[in-house]
Amino acid sequence: MADANNSAAPATLPLERLSLNQITVKQLSLPEVVEACGRFGIGTISAWRDPIAEVGIDEAERVVKDAGLRVSSVCRGGFFPYKDDLDRQRMIADNRAAVEEAARLGADCLVLVCGGATGDPRDIDRARDQIREGIELLLPYAIELDVPLGIEPLHPAMVTRSAITSLGEANDLAESFDSSHVGVVIDVYHVFWDKYLEREIRRCGANGNILGFHVCDWLDVPSLEIFQGRGMMGDGVIDIPRIRSLIDEAGYDGPIEVEVISAANWQRPADSVIQDVIHTFQESA
Amino acid sequence: MADANNSAAPATLPLERLSLNQITVKQLSLPEVVEACGRFGIGTISAWRDPIAEVGIDEAERVVKDAGLRVSSVCRGGFFPYKDDLDRQRMIADNRAAVEEAARLGADCLVLVCGGATGDPRDIDRARDQIREGIELLLPYAIELDVPLGIEPLHPAMVTRSAITSLGEANDLAESFDSSHVGVVIDVYHVFWDKYLEREIRRCGANGNILGFHVCDWLDVPSLEIFQGRGMMGDGVIDIPRIRSLIDEAGYDGPIEVEVISAANWQRPADSVIQDVIHTFQESA
Repeated sequence: MADANNSAAPATLPLERLSLNQITVKQLSLPEVVEACGRFGIGTISAWRDPIAEVGIDEAERVVKDAGLRVSSVCRGGFFPYKDDLDRQRMIADNRAAVEEAARLGADCLVLVCGGATGDPRDIDRARDQIREGIELLLPYAIELDVPLGIEPLHPAMVTRSAITSLGEANDLAESFDSSHVGVVIDVYHVFWDKYLEREIRRCGANGNILGFHVCDWLDVPSLEIFQGRGMMGDGVIDIPRIRSLIDEAGYDGPIEVEVISAANWQRPADSVIQDVIHTFQESA
Repeated sequence: MADANNSAAPATLPLERLSLNQITVKQLSLPEVVEACGRFGIGTISAWRDPIAEVGIDEAERVVKDAGLRVSSVCRGGFFPYKDDLDRQRMIADNRAAVEEAARLGADCLVLVCGGATGDPRDIDRARDQIREGIELLLPYAIELDVPLGIEPLHPAMVTRSAITSLGEANDLAESFDSSHVGVVIDVYHVFWDKYLEREIRRCGANGNILGFHVCDWLDVPSLEIFQGRGMMGDGVIDIPRIRSLIDEAGYDGPIEVEVISAANWQRPADSVIQDVIHTFQESA
């Protein structure tokens, strides 16, 4: 029961576990995020590829390594489903570039947002076949560059963005590769609704397959911007401490990424957002 | 694969399978819906309880029976989770009244929208326990009045409205009662994203547990009104013919309810909405 697990969890989370996912402060460039982390005592970040591209991978690698930051993940590879052969070639090239960037930054993993159906938006099964094919094609290169691939199931409301919609499905897919370079990334926003969550967390934990853990909250509002309407920890309906306890018990002790994709927060001064991140991370995650 | 199933399905659906779920034309009173069904040659409806209450159950029964309409379902019982004992008593009384209304209208089933967590909105597991308790309490009365109870899993985006979020979970719950008076209601809007949908449809079909089938479509727009932003069949991303084929193959041959909860359509003349219902039902469901 949630109450029992809550009481077993420590009262506050040590800041050492915090990884600031860059999209939480999308208003900042990568060098600005790195600078802010220095000021706030945050030792780990997750880097998105657009802001990496903005400064170039050489400069990105330099500022991250000069600051001594750990990179818990690069967001993101994936979007595997393709319409035609040209599209397929583009998908392969883009994912190889993502693996290279993750390797350059020494990231713990490359997050895979797997993509939804293309062409016929109704054919989710075809998308699932193409996702498997995409990971198969990428895996040898990921092994060569030692970049673990983290399949992130997305909330079923985002099935057009990822056909992988539950942790059970992500576990099935990850296990089918039987490779230490394929695992899962668990974001509470995407999986909290699932009755079978506890079983599935235990399962990927037992396999050593948990490559990342992301937190934010699900705001219970009638008209929800599913992609960019997420809340800070404690502002919504997700029992984050319970899920974190399950993740802890499953053996994951890596960084906990705060990934609050929120158009509202992007309008605010970034320092104020980061203050909220730290406070709600320690009190409500 | 979807293509193969599509081609196996008949080109158009016979109007005899259509049930007009009243909320699709919320702008009409129950007598007005009944009158419109007469003009459009629709022989089956699903009645919601608010419009039943508006005219009273006696009048509702009279207009429906005088028109010779079949009632595929009454929407809805459920919302079982309770905060305290008073709330629990209210939940029981309200659900007994729902069973009585369904019996009076001779409905094929009472749809259960099971409810989300109350009190602590984060405690979904407690909500699930209370849902089981609620159905246990209601079942003897449902058997007495011969009203089958149809557990409808809702989309995980609506977990605060129903803690039962997948067909697999609804099947687990329904089977645990081992009663011909507990089954499931399948709405494509709520379940289309599920990788394990085919398996779960076969499962409830084999048990004779499919009590109803609802269609509408999922519109792929960035800011979605999850509850009242649904589309007509063919306007969104759901492969409805595929799911209908699966339902057919699972042995369900009852009415197919068109339940398009759409604030946009409620602003339009009801006759025009009904014309769209008939057209898209025949062409795209």
